[in-house]
Amino acid sequence: MSRFWSPFVRDLVPYVPGEQPKDKVFIKLNTNENPYGPSPHALEVIRDAAGDDLRRYPDPMATDLRAAISEGLGLTEDHVFIGNGSDEVLAHAFNGFFRDKGPVLFPDVTYSFYPTYCRLFELASHHVPLDEDFRLDPEDYRGSCGGIVIANPNAPTGIAIGLDEIAHVLSRNPDRVVLVDEAYVDFGSESAVSLVPEHDNLLVVQTFSKSRSLAGMRVGFAVGQPHLIEGLLRVKDSFNSYPLDQLALAGAKAAWHDRNWFEETRKLVMTDRDATADALSGQGFRVLPSKTNFLFASHPDISGAALLEALRNEGILVRHFRGTRTGNWLRISVGTKEECGRLVEATGSILSRATA
Amino acid sequence: MSRFWSPFVRDLVPYVPGEQPKDKVFIKLNTNENPYGPSPHALEVIRDAAGDDLRRYPDPMATDLRAAISEGLGLTEDHVFIGNGSDEVLAHAFNGFFRDKGPVLFPDVTYSFYPTYCRLFELASHHVPLDEDFRLDPEDYRGSCGGIVIANPNAPTGIAIGLDEIAHVLSRNPDRVVLVDEAYVDFGSESAVSLVPEHDNLLVVQTFSKSRSLAGMRVGFAVGQPHLIEGLLRVKDSFNSYPLDQLALAGAKAAWHDRNWFEETRKLVMTDRDATADALSGQGFRVLPSKTNFLFASHPDISGAALLEALRNEGILVRHFRGTRTGNWLRISVGTKEECGRLVEATGSILSRATA
Repeated sequence: MSRFWSPFVRDLVPYVPGEQPKDKVFIKLNTNENPYGPSPHALEVIRDAAGDDLRRYPDPMATDLRAAISEGLGLTEDHVFIGNGSDEVLAHAFNGFFRDKGPVLFPDVTYSFYPTYCRLFELASHHVPLDEDFRLDPEDYRGSCGGIVIANPNAPTGIAIGLDEIAHVLSRNPDRVVLVDEAYVDFGSESAVSLVPEHDNLLVVQTFSKSRSLAGMRVGFAVGQPHLIEGLLRVKDSFNSYPLDQLALAGAKAAWHDRNWFEETRKLVMTDRDATADALSGQGFRVLPSKTNFLFASHPDISGAALLEALRNEGILVRHFRGTRTGNWLRISVGTKEECGRLVEATGSILSRATA
Repeated sequence: MSRFWSPFVRDLVPYVPGEQPKDKVFIKLNTNENPYGPSPHALEVIRDAAGDDLRRYPDPMATDLRAAISEGLGLTEDHVFIGNGSDEVLAHAFNGFFRDKGPVLFPDVTYSFYPTYCRLFELASHHVPLDEDFRLDPEDYRGSCGGIVIANPNAPTGIAIGLDEIAHVLSRNPDRVVLVDEAYVDFGSESAVSLVPEHDNLLVVQTFSKSRSLAGMRVGFAVGQPHLIEGLLRVKDSFNSYPLDQLALAGAKAAWHDRNWFEETRKLVMTDRDATADALSGQGFRVLPSKTNFLFASHPDISGAALLEALRNEGILVRHFRGTRTGNWLRISVGTKEECGRLVEATGSILSRATA
């Protein structure tokens, strides 16, 4: 604490990202990174762009990348906003649409950055309980509030809801923005982007960090009707004109166009996810049905914290979230087939020791 | 305007960056970019880092880059904060130190992003007039306020004040943060970083965009005592855990270590700046004494707006700021020797036509 801080700073509870160990001895299944590298074509484009032109500022409007994404989605450019990772996009959206609007609604178990944004922008929030199976009931999202945030699929549960349920929430809340965070949408669930033309209160947020394997480059985007995109641009241009560097803009565009790499790698992830879920279930784990690149799992014979530690001793990092509802669960990113095999082997031997 | 916007959004006056034309036919002296490319060694490091590891998140603490910078400055790592360009660093500082603290003081002619941040964070501001020669009087910065921001050298004037004057402001305002924005410090003025150990209220902000020619990569940093850096980290980690991508982190570190390139290119810029100032003065321009990589100049025979337009017709972009005090002036970035020559030639022929 410092007397120089603005008063709100002392009440902040910063988001804590998963560990990024410096040594590479760990099998890293703790930050939902893609086990396959980015599009080789994108890497080539990035290397080619690393030249003297870096003395210039990037395009503050991200024109080319917006054009590529909007064309791919069958929308015009004014439906797309680009940010420095989807976290920055979410931050601008919380600020631009929820400030001084009333409490923000989101599930009690969801991406833990949402309550952090609320503290940063001094927004009230209401954490709507998921049911005992971590399922979301769209009926719970109504009544007086400043805005609604739904991660679909949800994190860390991995559970997706259908577009009819999203549409229901949109129709029941015509006067507030419904933000659908689709960080993991490409691993098997349906995108609400198709609902954008019909719903002026919908903002969909996606990222290049997961299915396009560019976590190291920081690119996210929002899709919504132009009046929402304009609001985001006004906030962004009052904060940082050039949030994306030239290489991130060029690399993301190339990755977006490399459909083959995208399809191939996401299918591998989904296949290995399902096989790993089956194997863990076979070991007595309860595994939630995942439409993401991670599994949320718990076991009756060992606590989440103990399993986290035991896996770490076996050289495998996974993620654990404290809290009444999540404390006994682990979030396990889907790695390569080999890494998934190593995980299942490790949980198997840990469990046999625990129950011996 | 949209009914979905947070109320403050409609009152925002976004910063407008200088034009980035897509075609390269223009001599671009409008955004204070470095005429020489980034360190060739930095470019090599960036290209080498563009590989499969981009699937990983970057180091959220920017450990290596903080270590490099702090070591170069003779301080420990906890004195350095890294941001996505100095604009993002400034935004977090305005938010983290000035919110709910009273009006922020800065000169009436200075970087136009400062009033924009004030609107974004709903801070009152007081614009302290520079004297008729655009000089700052340290005596003007005192009395009840929430914080003080001084660009040194100032933009768009290019004028620097001495460290004794900065120290005077610091001592007169022991209970508020004095933010010294040193975006242009490497072109001939003294850095206040040397005052950091003695002053717990000093935050110095610098950038890799100008003297290190990495505008296209978005890297800025702040230097201050650890309690101020901790405040910035709390705000940053409540907004975006990973504001810098892997390539920006690696490239900036390499550029920081390439002292030879830095010294060589900044000297060229300073030499050509002084020669261009002399040439423009010889044509009857009033040119303010610049310690930056740009010149602020006006001419009694032609308005700023008219000269801007005439130069554009000659294929040269410069920057013009509307307003009572700045409307008759142009801010001209220092280009290569050849570009500076072309500028002086163009102003010469425009003036001879204007006065013919």
